[in-house]
Amino acid sequence: MTYCVAMRLRDGMVFASDSRTNAGFDQISTFRKMFLFQQPGERLLVLLSAGNLATSQSVISLLEERTHGNGQHLLNVSSMYEAAVLVGNTLREVVSRDTPETPTQGQHVDFGCSLILGGQIAGEQPRLFHLYPEGNFIEATEETPYFQIGESKYGKPIIDRILNYDSSLELAYKTALISFDSTMKSNLSVGMPIDTLTIPAGKLSDVSIYQVTENDRYLQQLQAHWTQGIQTLMATLPAREPAA
Amino acid sequence: MTYCVAMRLRDGMVFASDSRTNAGFDQISTFRKMFLFQQPGERLLVLLSAGNLATSQSVISLLEERTHGNGQHLLNVSSMYEAAVLVGNTLREVVSRDTPETPTQGQHVDFGCSLILGGQIAGEQPRLFHLYPEGNFIEATEETPYFQIGESKYGKPIIDRILNYDSSLELAYKTALISFDSTMKSNLSVGMPIDTLTIPAGKLSDVSIYQVTENDRYLQQLQAHWTQGIQTLMATLPAREPAA
Repeated sequence: MTYCVAMRLRDGMVFASDSRTNAGFDQISTFRKMFLFQQPGERLLVLLSAGNLATSQSVISLLEERTHGNGQHLLNVSSMYEAAVLVGNTLREVVSRDTPETPTQGQHVDFGCSLILGGQIAGEQPRLFHLYPEGNFIEATEETPYFQIGESKYGKPIIDRILNYDSSLELAYKTALISFDSTMKSNLSVGMPIDTLTIPAGKLSDVSIYQVTENDRYLQQLQAHWTQGIQTLMATLPAREPAA
Repeated sequence: MTYCVAMRLRDGMVFASDSRTNAGFDQISTFRKMFLFQQPGERLLVLLSAGNLATSQSVISLLEERTHGNGQHLLNVSSMYEAAVLVGNTLREVVSRDTPETPTQGQHVDFGCSLILGGQIAGEQPRLFHLYPEGNFIEATEETPYFQIGESKYGKPIIDRILNYDSSLELAYKTALISFDSTMKSNLSVGMPIDTLTIPAGKLSDVSIYQVTENDRYLQQLQAHWTQGIQTLMATLPAREPAA
């Protein structure tokens, strides 16, 4: 499994993705699920992927390869919306290429993958899209400023309680890390390291993915404060009246 | 969907279940998912159910009906383990009765349901079992003192962070309510009212289900304190060092 989250706020965007890929419990590997496409100063696009690894890797390979060609590609489309259409088409292309007409060996294999595409092209505001395995997509709004893909349920309540469009990037980053910590404590299929990327609105160059490992000092600080804080908070909640 | 949780601690047991049942978004109903079987002073058994409503209702009906017969039933089995075997057998009986040999109208219907069985029979300690749709089951231990069925992921991290075998019943009850609140904030298929039941160890009579409704004053207090507390806690977590 996988867990990825992306937030588009007034101040900019925050992305985070784990790097565990598993096909059964004895076949666990580490794969990056965060990919950057940039034209420094002009555009900065981020893709996060969850689902069939063969499909998502092929989509990324084709998208990268084509940036060197003459057709339409991620480094020359005129808007983030056009970029989302292009990624959706590429996803459909791979799924239709790889899905056999009749299931191999009688087994149904899910070739689908979900993607999050976020970023900014000069002249536009930052935009964020969630692409479904069918290649269609939805866009984040002020009311719904974040998307998750993969193993999303464990880490959703904390985001729902904290995040809104006006949250600071710092708060969003902390919320994303706690959301990952909650997920990894409850589910083995999501694992370290976590790739993270914070992009202030309007910043179209000089960003880099920061990889949070298990020994990351800041993460350990957050985990310790959070665990202690939650336990204290729960212990100090009002007690039930005897009548109940 | 459904969400149920049950905890077996040193001091006793806590049960909670929602009451929303849905088959599609336009067919939402309220059904109790918590059932008591008691012989005051001698035994007290609690069943929680999730999954196919026709199956779980039939299982409960058969279990209740048979307490008036001469065979083995929940009010005369000699141990909680025997009770779990009996419930598992009844579940298998209903699923095998209702599952057609060939899918009706070409549609695959899931006739399965999951159950949690907890309680105490005089002479034994309180015991807690999680029954799978296949009728087999596992038992809670000191290391794993709680079970969830249904839409369990949203509400799992908070329990994992707080609960252990030595937690007080009061803390367990608060944790269960917050776990429900987290689930209901993030998922529409789990809904009010919440049936709750707290049973101190050794108490084999005079317990009653307490129904928490949306207007429950204590729940509203908890929600307000929790939301405020979580936001304050997140805001006061250490900030990232500039280097990161």
